[in-house]
Amino acid sequence: MTAAPAGPPPRTRRARGGDGGRRPVYDASSLLEVAVAEFNTRGYDATSMEDLSRAAGITKSSFYHHVSGKEELLRAALTRALDGLFGILSEPGSMEGSALDRLRHIIFRQVEVLQSELPYVTLLLRVRGNTETERWALARRRAFDATLASLVADAVADGEVRAGVEPSLAARLLSGTVNSISEWYRPGRPGSDELPGEVVRIVAEGIIPPAQIPPARIPPA
Amino acid sequence: MTAAPAGPPPRTRRARGGDGGRRPVYDASSLLEVAVAEFNTRGYDATSMEDLSRAAGITKSSFYHHVSGKEELLRAALTRALDGLFGILSEPGSMEGSALDRLRHIIFRQVEVLQSELPYVTLLLRVRGNTETERWALARRRAFDATLASLVADAVADGEVRAGVEPSLAARLLSGTVNSISEWYRPGRPGSDELPGEVVRIVAEGIIPPAQIPPARIPPA
Repeated sequence: MTAAPAGPPPRTRRARGGDGGRRPVYDASSLLEVAVAEFNTRGYDATSMEDLSRAAGITKSSFYHHVSGKEELLRAALTRALDGLFGILSEPGSMEGSALDRLRHIIFRQVEVLQSELPYVTLLLRVRGNTETERWALARRRAFDATLASLVADAVADGEVRAGVEPSLAARLLSGTVNSISEWYRPGRPGSDELPGEVVRIVAEGIIPPAQIPPARIPPA
Repeated sequence: MTAAPAGPPPRTRRARGGDGGRRPVYDASSLLEVAVAEFNTRGYDATSMEDLSRAAGITKSSFYHHVSGKEELLRAALTRALDGLFGILSEPGSMEGSALDRLRHIIFRQVEVLQSELPYVTLLLRVRGNTETERWALARRRAFDATLASLVADAVADGEVRAGVEPSLAARLLSGTVNSISEWYRPGRPGSDELPGEVVRIVAEGIIPPAQIPPARIPPA
């Protein structure tokens, strides 16, 4: 499943074979889309090749014509999400400017990638490490988060971030905030275009007016 | 499984029955602990009663002596998490003071409940709505989040939150930030005691110094 052949959308092109022309013809790319939706609904572990074939409306043997098994589909889906995220890090905005500017750019773009690749990023965020592919994806996620943590640490060192902000905690909370968007975001929502900018602003500036930051900051337990 | 009988810890009390005294005796409460760990590792859908009996080290029929099935365990676990969270809302700190004060108190305590009830809250946050119990838990979570959103809206109306902050987005991001802690927090980590206060501060105040909030806030895409 390295390259999906170009072709018309799967649900309109029809087979003319022995099935009477009623079944859609799938390619590897559209099977991936179906599989990711099933994985996100049922959980990867609980999804069988039978479930996938049924969802695609093809026989299990037709399914195996395209892919070796569900782990191949998992890896392809996670690769797509990770390529989207790691692609951000080589953009000029991630490499030029102050640490804080780079951090803002990366968070902005992370939200955009989450919006455009929602099912794939959602799957990535649900990976638990039960298979080799999942452990590989978790290691890649950790590497991405380590890049963020290192930028936060640079921004603290440069005085661009409040003293007292612990870089690794801040980086975890930043990632957590961005990733949580996958729980509720749906494409086409009103405000989708403004979302990346709003998220950057809220995580950088918080929600209270700067002038109202009180001296006693931690409420009593 | 309404009330777990009091008794010594399950792994030290030993059966004296026909199994030669080698198997631990479980009560409903300790079975719940085992079940939640399995659900969190494998996913609820992928966990069978066989998996649960194996993890508990007892036979499937012994397991059914305590509980009717895995959905009963799921409901008991989710109830524990939800009771912890909803309990916060009736604390004085959640009912007295300004909307912003109440919001800070709730977030602080949400982190504390997450820390003390980590496996149960983790399970709650992974619920997807595939069963009646899961849909009930999701509805309860939404009710909790609606309370937060309403407090943010009050705080915006009272001028305690920056103008321009969209209450429902801010509430979703606040919840998302807090909930994401379950992904990496482990009891006993250094800084555990300070975590609730640090989280409140970062979500309220952001990470950049108030004096350095630039006029152009949104980075170019």
